[in-house]
Amino acid sequence: MINKLIEKIKATNAPIVVGLDPMLSYVPEHVQQKAFAEYGETLEGAAEAIWQFNKAIVDATCDLIPAVKPQVAMYEQFGVPGMAAYEKTVSYCQEKGLVVIGDIKRGDIGSTSEAYAVGHLGHVKVGSKSYAGFHEDFATVNPYLGSDGVKPFIKVCKEEKKGLFILVKTSNPSSGEFQDRLIDGRPLYEWVGEQVAAWGEEHMGDSYSYIGAVVGATYPKMGKVLRSIMPKSYILVPGYGAQGGQGKDLVHFFNEDGLGAIVNSSRGIIAAYKQEKYASFGAENFADASRQAVVDMVTDIRTALENA
Amino acid sequence: MINKLIEKIKATNAPIVVGLDPMLSYVPEHVQQKAFAEYGETLEGAAEAIWQFNKAIVDATCDLIPAVKPQVAMYEQFGVPGMAAYEKTVSYCQEKGLVVIGDIKRGDIGSTSEAYAVGHLGHVKVGSKSYAGFHEDFATVNPYLGSDGVKPFIKVCKEEKKGLFILVKTSNPSSGEFQDRLIDGRPLYEWVGEQVAAWGEEHMGDSYSYIGAVVGATYPKMGKVLRSIMPKSYILVPGYGAQGGQGKDLVHFFNEDGLGAIVNSSRGIIAAYKQEKYASFGAENFADASRQAVVDMVTDIRTALENA
Repeated sequence: MINKLIEKIKATNAPIVVGLDPMLSYVPEHVQQKAFAEYGETLEGAAEAIWQFNKAIVDATCDLIPAVKPQVAMYEQFGVPGMAAYEKTVSYCQEKGLVVIGDIKRGDIGSTSEAYAVGHLGHVKVGSKSYAGFHEDFATVNPYLGSDGVKPFIKVCKEEKKGLFILVKTSNPSSGEFQDRLIDGRPLYEWVGEQVAAWGEEHMGDSYSYIGAVVGATYPKMGKVLRSIMPKSYILVPGYGAQGGQGKDLVHFFNEDGLGAIVNSSRGIIAAYKQEKYASFGAENFADASRQAVVDMVTDIRTALENA
Repeated sequence: MINKLIEKIKATNAPIVVGLDPMLSYVPEHVQQKAFAEYGETLEGAAEAIWQFNKAIVDATCDLIPAVKPQVAMYEQFGVPGMAAYEKTVSYCQEKGLVVIGDIKRGDIGSTSEAYAVGHLGHVKVGSKSYAGFHEDFATVNPYLGSDGVKPFIKVCKEEKKGLFILVKTSNPSSGEFQDRLIDGRPLYEWVGEQVAAWGEEHMGDSYSYIGAVVGATYPKMGKVLRSIMPKSYILVPGYGAQGGQGKDLVHFFNEDGLGAIVNSSRGIIAAYKQEKYASFGAENFADASRQAVVDMVTDIRTALENA
């Protein structure tokens, strides 16, 4: 799957991923009203609204982008109907040829991590049959529990040709509280990065590993260090746009081959029509605003990479 | 909710929680076959099998125990139907008067953590209505992302009178890879424990905080240190039984008031009928075997506490 992701990044010349994190407040009034007319103001109605919202954005942007990253929390908040909308979104994006990175940040131990891995990236056995529950192509994983928590995911990825992005240095302001603490003179995130690199070297696609890392765009200097610690790991970079990261901050996350990083934007793309810059599209044309925001983001990053 | 949990622990004189982590391989053949006869060998069939399995165990043990801890991964592996079985299990246990600890180990940042918190412990707004998606009473949370990740959960707990157990030192063999690394001479888990204690002091029930911690039974010495670092935090202790923890290892997790800890056993209870010790019950009477295993676990822990 890492090979497919890289092919798609090259084909689109767009090292970006659109975060499908649909807060109900991002969904234009007319989309909400149509869903509520059919299902009422229920969890099913909310799930229908976010699904229709996603579908329009995917239709408007899928030729420009290699991948999407649905954030499962935004679906999970709507209970079981929300999880059904998540699965429907994953399926639809895959039908459109997109690589799907499930931003699930799961992590547990042993058989429990295996259950998460099986449910999201693999197949679960039921009697003589087997089923793929949520069938994302990649998943994000939390490493706090150590190897026991990560290895079951790696095992399933190997069997199913899927991939991971492991949290190393997250984009949020307080990520340093634990991640930046010094251990033998080096911050925790570097130790986690070294572990990711070690796992990565044992699990290679053609040129990059299918065991990648998450490093926030908001910490470009740390990104530079982590890039060199994990030369073969793809880095998923959140924090661009709404969280403050800019194109020029991103250059250190890439390797000299122009590859090695994929930059996520969620709100900046899917709620673009709410920004002053794209207000002229109007709420009716929210998906066209998202398309323009993708074009602008790709230009920003390409320009930064060319000037680097 | 922490007050209710403590009341129930006192009323049952059982500081234990039954982990409802139903691997399909734990579900007796006759329960599986009945579910498959109705729904086929499908995800729905698997979900029905684990739900019927849970229901029988809850019916057989609910008068003896204060709480259950369903592990969401075991449901999530069966996709959307699995998540529906999870919600049904939570509802049923609450109807039976049990406190439900959702072992979800979620953790993200800002609005994303808030979405998890709302979906599992709170209410989500849909138009003019609001709904509780999975409505557990407590949830486990992963602290790797720092305060940004935890505070949205605390906020929802405060509003909804729910509670948290934050991962401090997990029970698995490799938990030390990151959690035990020394920072200014003290292991990371102690720093996380101090943070949990600080959050806890600001969010108190009558005698204990509703911000608790997870500390594995497999690390009793660390449990002793963490007990003194977090005097007002309830400690959820996994790792008893199948993972190797015994009654005598647990005494240091309790305070002198005999409270302060709640010990989980999953496989040891729900798959008791598979153990030699309880084999005479037979697979047909798996729930009775679980009841006996609860009685034996409570006796083991009470004896250890009395001899401490």
